[in-house]
Amino acid sequence: MERARIRLHVEHPLGPGQAVPLTEAQAHYLFGVMRLGAGARVALFNGRDGEWTAEVARAAKRGGDLACIEQAAPQLNPPDLWLVFAPIKKARTDFIVEKAAELGAARIIPVQTDFTNSERIRQDRLQAHAVEAAEQCGGTFVPEVSDLVPLAKVLAGWDGARRILWADESLAGPAETLAGLAPGPWAILIGPEGGFSEPERARLRGLPFVTPVSLGPRILRADTAACAALTLWQAALGDWR
Amino acid sequence: MERARIRLHVEHPLGPGQAVPLTEAQAHYLFGVMRLGAGARVALFNGRDGEWTAEVARAAKRGGDLACIEQAAPQLNPPDLWLVFAPIKKARTDFIVEKAAELGAARIIPVQTDFTNSERIRQDRLQAHAVEAAEQCGGTFVPEVSDLVPLAKVLAGWDGARRILWADESLAGPAETLAGLAPGPWAILIGPEGGFSEPERARLRGLPFVTPVSLGPRILRADTAACAALTLWQAALGDWR
Repeated sequence: MERARIRLHVEHPLGPGQAVPLTEAQAHYLFGVMRLGAGARVALFNGRDGEWTAEVARAAKRGGDLACIEQAAPQLNPPDLWLVFAPIKKARTDFIVEKAAELGAARIIPVQTDFTNSERIRQDRLQAHAVEAAEQCGGTFVPEVSDLVPLAKVLAGWDGARRILWADESLAGPAETLAGLAPGPWAILIGPEGGFSEPERARLRGLPFVTPVSLGPRILRADTAACAALTLWQAALGDWR
Repeated sequence: MERARIRLHVEHPLGPGQAVPLTEAQAHYLFGVMRLGAGARVALFNGRDGEWTAEVARAAKRGGDLACIEQAAPQLNPPDLWLVFAPIKKARTDFIVEKAAELGAARIIPVQTDFTNSERIRQDRLQAHAVEAAEQCGGTFVPEVSDLVPLAKVLAGWDGARRILWADESLAGPAETLAGLAPGPWAILIGPEGGFSEPERARLRGLPFVTPVSLGPRILRADTAACAALTLWQAALGDWR
């Protein structure tokens, strides 16, 4: 069976013959925007059960039902990698979330640092970006995006079994090879424009589970640094090996 | 001497005592927008002479002069790496050029492929994005952005001494390690959304200087693929080692 072109993230469990009710927004998208009718095929994923090919069983103005037919792809979860980053300008923050979802981060944690301008984020909007990235890129997993939390609080409650790869912009120079790092749960930490404050830097340097890393001889914007660090980690320790 | 915060790309040669005339747009930016006056410091680079600290010698409404004082950083050229990519939506094309400049591409070549929607690009606007990326990120080099040219024409005139790393989206799976690749001049080739057509794929597979590479088990958008491939190449063969 050819894989359906339209991909939709749903909360509902997926399985053989499973009926999946649609929200009003999903019904509007499928029947109003994409003009699908009964019998049309849609790909569904919920972050747990892989990708399923489903058929439109009932199309209504404000709802409808899909019926699962068969699994089209197994569930693909990312490695146990988190991205901890300081939100920057809106478009670039959106971009970081999208790229983290594509490159295979399991969880995304926006943090407030001394040099972070934003005091709040639209968590729901960022989560929607992560969903859209998975829908667009054939993913079956959507990383959870947390609400904004102060970096100090995140570090205070940190489980040291999860190591932190700190993209330290003061280390401009040859990038360390990540090949020697121990496998296991990791988080990548990316600072805001302007980097981390001196107290934050001292704190990070003093934590035994933090490994500073250079991302080459050029200074990178925060969004570029996030992409580069995720890529290097995936190639060295993640599921790109 | 503290490095000047405002960075400006100029065409003029830079050297001890060198006077640098400003264009009307530069004068407007420095004196109108940034409100600099005589004696204020600006960092200049031209892509050849490193970064120079300069002083405002004459500020006028539609022009002015800067005077170079001393070199603040040596010229840092990227490795001999080109990025050949198919333009996609405007914002993502801008983004690819910005990221290629940040991540250290020496030349950027937009190509028209069978599945490329755009028939023309604004070369001047993309070149300006590359300049801005270098200004923002402390770079001293600006990659040249070519005008749009058909992929077939690029490949027909290709010098086989420059190898091509082809991000082949059909290879989803573990990313090959790039560590075994031969050093030397390279180009990264990124396709449009929808990938390359079958005739294009056959052509690429038949070229002895083309190496297909996987970028992990997830399908990446073209802009994400460009960032990831540039990062992996820099870490394996470029100046991030």
